[in-house]
Amino acid sequence: MKHSIVIVGGMAAGCSAAARLSLSEECNVTIIEKGSHVSVSTCGLAGYAGGEIDKPDDLSRTAFGVQRDPKYFRDFKNVIVFVNTEAQEIHVDGKKLRCRNTHTGEVMEICYDALLIATGSQPAKPNFQCAESPLISSFYYPDDGVRLRELAQKGQIGSAVIIGAGSDGCELSESLSEMWGIEVRLLDKRGRILPSVLDPELSLFLQNGTKSNRIALRLSANASGIQLNSKGLPVVSTEDGQQIECDYVLKCLGVDPATELAKRAGIKTGVHGGILVDESLKTNVSGIWAAGDCVEVVNLVTGTPSLFLHSSRANMMGRFAADSIMGRKVSFRGEAGTFSARIFGKSVCAAGLTQELAKESGFEASSVLGCWSDKPEYNPEAKPIFGKLVYDRSDMRLLGLQLTGESGIARYLDVFAELLSERKKVYDLVQLEHAFSPSDSNPVSPLNNLGLMALDQELDGVTNLSPLLVSQFSGVIVDVRENSEAASLPFPGKRVHVPFGELRSRFHDFDSSDHFVFVCSKGPRGYEAARLFLNHGFRNASYLGGGILLYNAIRNCAAASAGQLIEQLVSKT
Amino acid sequence: MKHSIVIVGGMAAGCSAAARLSLSEECNVTIIEKGSHVSVSTCGLAGYAGGEIDKPDDLSRTAFGVQRDPKYFRDFKNVIVFVNTEAQEIHVDGKKLRCRNTHTGEVMEICYDALLIATGSQPAKPNFQCAESPLISSFYYPDDGVRLRELAQKGQIGSAVIIGAGSDGCELSESLSEMWGIEVRLLDKRGRILPSVLDPELSLFLQNGTKSNRIALRLSANASGIQLNSKGLPVVSTEDGQQIECDYVLKCLGVDPATELAKRAGIKTGVHGGILVDESLKTNVSGIWAAGDCVEVVNLVTGTPSLFLHSSRANMMGRFAADSIMGRKVSFRGEAGTFSARIFGKSVCAAGLTQELAKESGFEASSVLGCWSDKPEYNPEAKPIFGKLVYDRSDMRLLGLQLTGESGIARYLDVFAELLSERKKVYDLVQLEHAFSPSDSNPVSPLNNLGLMALDQELDGVTNLSPLLVSQFSGVIVDVRENSEAASLPFPGKRVHVPFGELRSRFHDFDSSDHFVFVCSKGPRGYEAARLFLNHGFRNASYLGGGILLYNAIRNCAAASAGQLIEQLVSKT
Repeated sequence: MKHSIVIVGGMAAGCSAAARLSLSEECNVTIIEKGSHVSVSTCGLAGYAGGEIDKPDDLSRTAFGVQRDPKYFRDFKNVIVFVNTEAQEIHVDGKKLRCRNTHTGEVMEICYDALLIATGSQPAKPNFQCAESPLISSFYYPDDGVRLRELAQKGQIGSAVIIGAGSDGCELSESLSEMWGIEVRLLDKRGRILPSVLDPELSLFLQNGTKSNRIALRLSANASGIQLNSKGLPVVSTEDGQQIECDYVLKCLGVDPATELAKRAGIKTGVHGGILVDESLKTNVSGIWAAGDCVEVVNLVTGTPSLFLHSSRANMMGRFAADSIMGRKVSFRGEAGTFSARIFGKSVCAAGLTQELAKESGFEASSVLGCWSDKPEYNPEAKPIFGKLVYDRSDMRLLGLQLTGESGIARYLDVFAELLSERKKVYDLVQLEHAFSPSDSNPVSPLNNLGLMALDQELDGVTNLSPLLVSQFSGVIVDVRENSEAASLPFPGKRVHVPFGELRSRFHDFDSSDHFVFVCSKGPRGYEAARLFLNHGFRNASYLGGGILLYNAIRNCAAASAGQLIEQLVSKT
Repeated sequence: MKHSIVIVGGMAAGCSAAARLSLSEECNVTIIEKGSHVSVSTCGLAGYAGGEIDKPDDLSRTAFGVQRDPKYFRDFKNVIVFVNTEAQEIHVDGKKLRCRNTHTGEVMEICYDALLIATGSQPAKPNFQCAESPLISSFYYPDDGVRLRELAQKGQIGSAVIIGAGSDGCELSESLSEMWGIEVRLLDKRGRILPSVLDPELSLFLQNGTKSNRIALRLSANASGIQLNSKGLPVVSTEDGQQIECDYVLKCLGVDPATELAKRAGIKTGVHGGILVDESLKTNVSGIWAAGDCVEVVNLVTGTPSLFLHSSRANMMGRFAADSIMGRKVSFRGEAGTFSARIFGKSVCAAGLTQELAKESGFEASSVLGCWSDKPEYNPEAKPIFGKLVYDRSDMRLLGLQLTGESGIARYLDVFAELLSERKKVYDLVQLEHAFSPSDSNPVSPLNNLGLMALDQELDGVTNLSPLLVSQFSGVIVDVRENSEAASLPFPGKRVHVPFGELRSRFHDFDSSDHFVFVCSKGPRGYEAARLFLNHGFRNASYLGGGILLYNAIRNCAAASAGQLIEQLVSKT
């Protein structure tokens, strides 16, 4: 008799586990899915809402044109799928799962030899009063995207408020504004966009990209309630007393692991609310495994259990869980954590910890910021990449990386995540090989360069100064660019201008007791100038990290938002 | 008194070392360069010859518009550069270098405290008679590119023969054909293009790309001489008795390390002709370091010294050498070896060993071939990626990776090179994290997928069959695609057609003593079908690696070249 394996949850982790399990022919596999769809690529939902993807069905269709529905799973995978079916209770002793069809109310019990909990996540609940209305929605379930697009396409949304400037909130702002011409107000209380994956410099840089469209950023606005006005339209209240009327509200407040079922069965959860599992993805309850977004895994940077919500990883965890259920030795090592998205016209990606989070986690977090061309300068298609490396000053261990550019940068994070997982150091960045071709990179990669800059900072004492600090700097700013460069890329404010090639003959023009910051377009000449001055008896000389290109982008954006924002951020970093 | 540091060679390694050394202000740095230019990005030379890059000076201009010439090095780097100056002899005992100006004949001697040999490489000499003519040239020095473009631009080259189908030969074929309408014959004796970095499958796949332009491949043609005819035009003779007349011949025969100077000074070289150095890049002669293409470094896959010719790595080695000369502890670990280029309209990249080279190096080299979409299938811009993973069957160690696709694939090789350097195994591929966003990748990366396929092959016995072997297969080929798919992507030759969803009800149609190959468009359904049959008592079932997409591309190309080519290649793999 075949083993009975029951999987609760029919998205990334559950379906990948089911597909893997069914290959062995030694078990009967059943998926219990609460919603009406299975195996939906929800990562494409913003693309659908924004009109880039044609039909919602495109998100659950195989490459060969067959819909991934219960029939597909039966015919192609030999897996039974129950949709619209809620798993209500696990009878741990009898190894039974009680389920209820949410349409018919019918209740059934399924016996299992092994149970996999792959219940994923669910939208986080707001901590404020929120009216019930079809015009107030999360953006998580397929139907959320379908409803939003339907209204947008019919022209019924003139203005929208999006609460939460994480990646969903930012992507949706852009889609709604660009595709449907909706006037968007993006609210967040945390002072900037993407605060959990980016430090202020790159957050502000990306915010700069909103200038070209109709998105208004309100990033010090703490939503305190959503009511309906007399016409039935939503009104968002903020703590500072504003009332924002609009046609639609999207709550993009992040997600929580969906663990009610597990908790009721006595399965242990961690400090972040996710299910705790061992390396083989077993829970503390015999016969029950867990995988995907509902699980806490070891954060390979901090060494502590963390939540990583990532369809890529959920997919692989599902496969690992399947092998573990089939009795194979499995060792899921944990995650360094990666992030990649397109936000306000730029690609942005990150791995590990921000400098802010690294400090909160107790590391002696230091950083360098850089700017490079993504292709050789002679390539007419070359565009700038900006990056920030975070490392521990005490032992030079790598802690995090953030990059933004036009495109083609996410794979740099793959190799960085591997270095994080292996607890590598700044020195190891410099040894990294780089498959170079002038069609898509420079001979020295951004990772090599960031490593070199960090070594220069720590071993040679040449400080890479954040543009946020330079904007507050009261010493002497020396612009070492060629005369011809200042016209096309002006550096704002008071500065001394000495082209780099003349510096060696101009030491006597400067007072060695002054503090200096050297600036150039991207950073390297500023670095060399600072080092030159340090070599020649000047005690305080540093350079502008990321160059004037980053500085100007941030300055413009900072001016557009509240003035004190910069100060807050500076004191944090 | 400052240390005198002399660098022989003013390209990637030499200039990067000089720039780094000059930062310390503790030394006088002098570069001796034989040619008339320094710090030229020769990797852009094919781009210049092909008209994509406007002026040859673009290849030696800084990002801020200043030419990297001796004046630049003096003003910006405090480095003295002698161009047109040949280093003739090193007096090891007296620590002196004798040089000669190749224009004036003037001889000078420079004393050094440390000498860095960064003489790079030089075009390999042909092993056949070759007439002297301005119409017969290597493609290596800046002037080679300038002369070629001048003639091409003036319309003086109607037809060209390129000898050597390595990356230079292939890139030039394409540039000359596309940009200047030149009729190109590309000759190689090794049976396929890029044989040192690609196995036959991906070589043939890329060769398929030549169909769209005027490039004739002659890949079993061994050039035996180049003479001039009565009009002074080149005639290339081949061993099989052909005489090919043309307007221009390019010898793209690879490069050798330039080590004459080093050898005369008693510096040891290795089996590949490169200078031998220790981890700190010191040669066996006191006071002399070496870096860049003239050096043999440890191949981190084979563990033996090898030559890697790569401007990216030369650049970093120059910096390591500078630190070593300044007394810092340096440990250059060696290289796994990476390759990246655009060839016949595709991006192609590789790291480590091909299966062929791995076998020659004594590994039990096994492989899997795959095809995936480079973005989610619902993304209308999705394009196929093809890849081959090479690993050692005896211990599952990773040995090499080859990928080709439209674009954006080279960074996959960066992380793979890191895994190779750390002697990681197939299991580690499956653990790799992947910074996923639907705008530029799939949740499960090609590296994850190749790892999974290799595990399936070794642990579950589901063989991934090369299309070259499938084309010779005498058993039953079962096409498991949907009925609708065969029309747009026909599978050639005799086959049985059973859509995957019907397989489970059709076992009785097949004879379990037969041998089966299951085919689908990209591979996954073929794999699942093979596994299903193996589970149900069929003993010989495998699947087509890379799917029909790869098979058809290779078949077309194989048909276009000599028939026995395929057989040769098959017997090798």
